[in-house]
Amino acid sequence: MFMSATTIAPIKERAIEFWFDFASTYSYLSAMRIEDVANASGLQVIWKPFLLGPIFASQGWTSSPFNLYPAKGRYMARDMERITQARGLAFRMPDPFPQHSVAAARLALVGLEHAWGPTLCKAIFQAEFADGLTISEPATLHHCLDMIGARQSNEIAAASTDAIKSRLRALTQDAQINGIFGAPTIRTADGELFWGDDRLEQAVAWAQQL
Amino acid sequence: MFMSATTIAPIKERAIEFWFDFASTYSYLSAMRIEDVANASGLQVIWKPFLLGPIFASQGWTSSPFNLYPAKGRYMARDMERITQARGLAFRMPDPFPQHSVAAARLALVGLEHAWGPTLCKAIFQAEFADGLTISEPATLHHCLDMIGARQSNEIAAASTDAIKSRLRALTQDAQINGIFGAPTIRTADGELFWGDDRLEQAVAWAQQL
Repeated sequence: MFMSATTIAPIKERAIEFWFDFASTYSYLSAMRIEDVANASGLQVIWKPFLLGPIFASQGWTSSPFNLYPAKGRYMARDMERITQARGLAFRMPDPFPQHSVAAARLALVGLEHAWGPTLCKAIFQAEFADGLTISEPATLHHCLDMIGARQSNEIAAASTDAIKSRLRALTQDAQINGIFGAPTIRTADGELFWGDDRLEQAVAWAQQL
Repeated sequence: MFMSATTIAPIKERAIEFWFDFASTYSYLSAMRIEDVANASGLQVIWKPFLLGPIFASQGWTSSPFNLYPAKGRYMARDMERITQARGLAFRMPDPFPQHSVAAARLALVGLEHAWGPTLCKAIFQAEFADGLTISEPATLHHCLDMIGARQSNEIAAASTDAIKSRLRALTQDAQINGIFGAPTIRTADGELFWGDDRLEQAVAWAQQL
């Protein structure tokens, strides 16, 4: 019952896939602007939540590279400050970082069965990176559903079904099979990957030429 | 005798520091355009060759992250193809990758004593990434000096002096002390870092406001 067309069908032309992890700072940047950028070019956005954790683990990483490599982590925090300030976005580094994003990703998959899925995803990103809430806590996810006016109990229950758990695992496997190793990654209809919020415009331009 | 003002003096306003490693694919992208981009904004470029190897080693990496993490390596190769094609730049992946860049970096430090230093740096990048030459081979470096009309024997000899060897070590230490963990990195007069060719415009805009 959760087998949505957007997940099962092959990627459509005139659309880009947006692969993201709710724990990822740069995914926040893209989530807040990707629909505007894509729609302005006549492209739809297919939201693809997945988990970086298993992909990092398969590379031997026990945490985010921003924790494993402190100079890189310090740079990322400053880079995020500069970019969010320039874009007028609120930002605070989650503490602890990274957040556990599995519950949020499962709930997002429920939401993405509905037209309000992208709105829910943005509400979760804002709760985490603008409001400093802990997205692994059920109260935060209830708050996000409440913010967008969705029925809380039904959606939270649906997020714990085996079907949704399997779907998130499958998406994470799909990501890895498709060569995705970081987030955000934009994937175009011809399978090209564009890694990082700073590649969004390039990805959209590429997709327009297909 | 190789204590140039550009290396010892504190970074000047109206200038940006360009930290690069000759082994770095994305450094090639920036090297070929940084002077045009910076000069168009009234900024000078201070070329800062350094070695990523010791910085990677201090993080426990025995090779380039593009070799250690194959998905990332495949992505980088494709990303470079797309970008160089869009910019009309020749590109071939060095084999083996990464190249040993120490001899090239030492020679660049000799060249950067002179007005033709940046021209030599670009000739080395082109030999490696456009012509497929091996930059650790003396013949390649001779070829690069020849291309730009520099006296070969003097410069090659100067590149092997203890003074130059020390200077490259010091620059690499400076890079690490300043928080640099990858290349290219642009450093502005106020110490802000901008990592990656895709941050060049942002770095220049930042430097202009100082």
